Amino acid sequence: MAVYTDVGEGELEAFLRNYPVGELLSYKGIAEGTENTNFLLHTTTGSYILTLYEKRVEKSDLPFFLGLMQHLAHKGLSCPLPVDGKDGNVIGTLAGRPAVIITFLEGMWLRRPQVVHCREVGRALAELHIAGQDFAMTRPNSLAIDGWRKLWDAAHPRADEVEPGLAREVDADFAEFEKSWPKGLPSGVIHADLFPDNVFFLGDKLSGLIDFYFACNDAYAYDLATCLNAWCFEKDFSFNLTKGTALLDGYQSVRPLSEDEKAALPILARGSALRFMLTRLYDWLTVPDGGLVMKRDPSEYIRRMRFHRTIKSAQEYGLK
Amino acid sequence: MAVYTDVGEGELEAFLRNYPVGELLSYKGIAEGTENTNFLLHTTTGSYILTLYEKRVEKSDLPFFLGLMQHLAHKGLSCPLPVDGKDGNVIGTLAGRPAVIITFLEGMWLRRPQVVHCREVGRALAELHIAGQDFAMTRPNSLAIDGWRKLWDAAHPRADEVEPGLAREVDADFAEFEKSWPKGLPSGVIHADLFPDNVFFLGDKLSGLIDFYFACNDAYAYDLATCLNAWCFEKDFSFNLTKGTALLDGYQSVRPLSEDEKAALPILARGSALRFMLTRLYDWLTVPDGGLVMKRDPSEYIRRMRFHRTIKSAQEYGLK
Repeated sequence: MAVYTDVGEGELEAFLRNYPVGELLSYKGIAEGTENTNFLLHTTTGSYILTLYEKRVEKSDLPFFLGLMQHLAHKGLSCPLPVDGKDGNVIGTLAGRPAVIITFLEGMWLRRPQVVHCREVGRALAELHIAGQDFAMTRPNSLAIDGWRKLWDAAHPRADEVEPGLAREVDADFAEFEKSWPKGLPSGVIHADLFPDNVFFLGDKLSGLIDFYFACNDAYAYDLATCLNAWCFEKDFSFNLTKGTALLDGYQSVRPLSEDEKAALPILARGSALRFMLTRLYDWLTVPDGGLVMKRDPSEYIRRMRFHRTIKSAQEYGLK
Repeated sequence: MAVYTDVGEGELEAFLRNYPVGELLSYKGIAEGTENTNFLLHTTTGSYILTLYEKRVEKSDLPFFLGLMQHLAHKGLSCPLPVDGKDGNVIGTLAGRPAVIITFLEGMWLRRPQVVHCREVGRALAELHIAGQDFAMTRPNSLAIDGWRKLWDAAHPRADEVEPGLAREVDADFAEFEKSWPKGLPSGVIHADLFPDNVFFLGDKLSGLIDFYFACNDAYAYDLATCLNAWCFEKDFSFNLTKGTALLDGYQSVRPLSEDEKAALPILARGSALRFMLTRLYDWLTVPDGGLVMKRDPSEYIRRMRFHRTIKSAQEYGLK
């Protein structure tokens, strides 16, 4: 939620000469994205996002993220399109950082999504999974079990500061996941972070998906389980079955789940809740107060983990 | 440089129904303005700024600021135009705060203004002074000598932490200003904060003036003196005589200075440097580190104060 790097108009104009976007009219630093610096540009040809990649993003991952966005956009998915430079490179350098120009998507992200939006998101997620099937590059999920373990090893000694008993509770989850985490599920490119702030709507119609900087190869059903966590819980932490039903219906209207995927959904949802709890917990314990990184309370994901432990089958999420 | 208040799309759309701006397409929190929360809106009729006034702005001053912007825009000055609501009120309420919709001005503010830009700013400042002459409302300058005195009383005990001897140095300035601060100079509406980040350019052409939230009634030449401080010093604190000449020439090409104003320029420039030193010093000493308000080093204005003390006549700034 911050502009980490300022850019002067002279260096920006020089940078833009390499891109077929017309003349610069204005640019404003915007408060979006927790990892990068983003500017909204107006030019004589329209609106664009300029992203400068700060040190939290691995430069070697950028070709995967940007190539994926181009692949998906060319397949007709509504997502931002990184603009190729006239020199043939999509990634340039600005203010000493890797930088790209991406088409601007109109639309608003919903602070309070409703049932109709959950259905749309389910459908869009399935379309993303299908559109990504012939994308040639791969990227392992750095936030799969091995990655969780690293975060947990760092956070473990102080976990009980957040909630007494948390260390023992999460240790038990790890023991179970290491024994029975599902393997061999249908896999491919997943978004891995499809939260409401990454989905734009115009009215009730989904207008675009953004922020592919956690995208990777993993089980499709895991991505869907993350959406259950991100879209179907209310502010009081209760699971909204109507929203769950809509999300799963929307998904299956495009890509029906296999029996294995259906059976795996509860444990995947539990693992996904653990994953978001862990990144929040890690930041909560290690990032200084008042810094630029926004710290989010891990406890809402502790609640989700506990909810998912009570689930016996995916029907309880609304699966038909 | 922050979004203090988030706004949901539902409440924003409800708010916008009172303004003739079309349908909302997107809105992004932007990192501009140190006092308020600003969003850049795209609608079916164009781009707008939504400003939410946070507690640092006196609500009773808003009719002056907004009325002035409307007055100046109607006189042909390029500045943002607050949009009247269909209910006849320019100020509405959003997220519990006074809020307005203002037309968006294209253009970039210059991190490194050149001589040609100083001339443009001088001309625009004089045009603003003339356009404001028949504006009916008035607002005293809360950051004139009495206001400086309040800031100084608060900062005085710790001033020497910033630079040893600073307390005694500024005390001597106050003694002199209280004896010989010029009175009776031509006065009217002044911008009072016309720094480079408040002036937009497209190429070398000035495209607009923004941020009228310090505007008030005071001596015109004081406003010009502030521009000398804001535009004509280099990063090494040296005064650039070529820029000073261009700024003053530009101003006088529209509104020639009287002999009294010319004679007063050195002491006005000294007072203006003190004013910006004091607000920075006050924030420096009182605002906690890591907060949302950006703290700026007061020492560059201490250097300007010392420079102006050596000036014998406005010719040394480049006045012809």
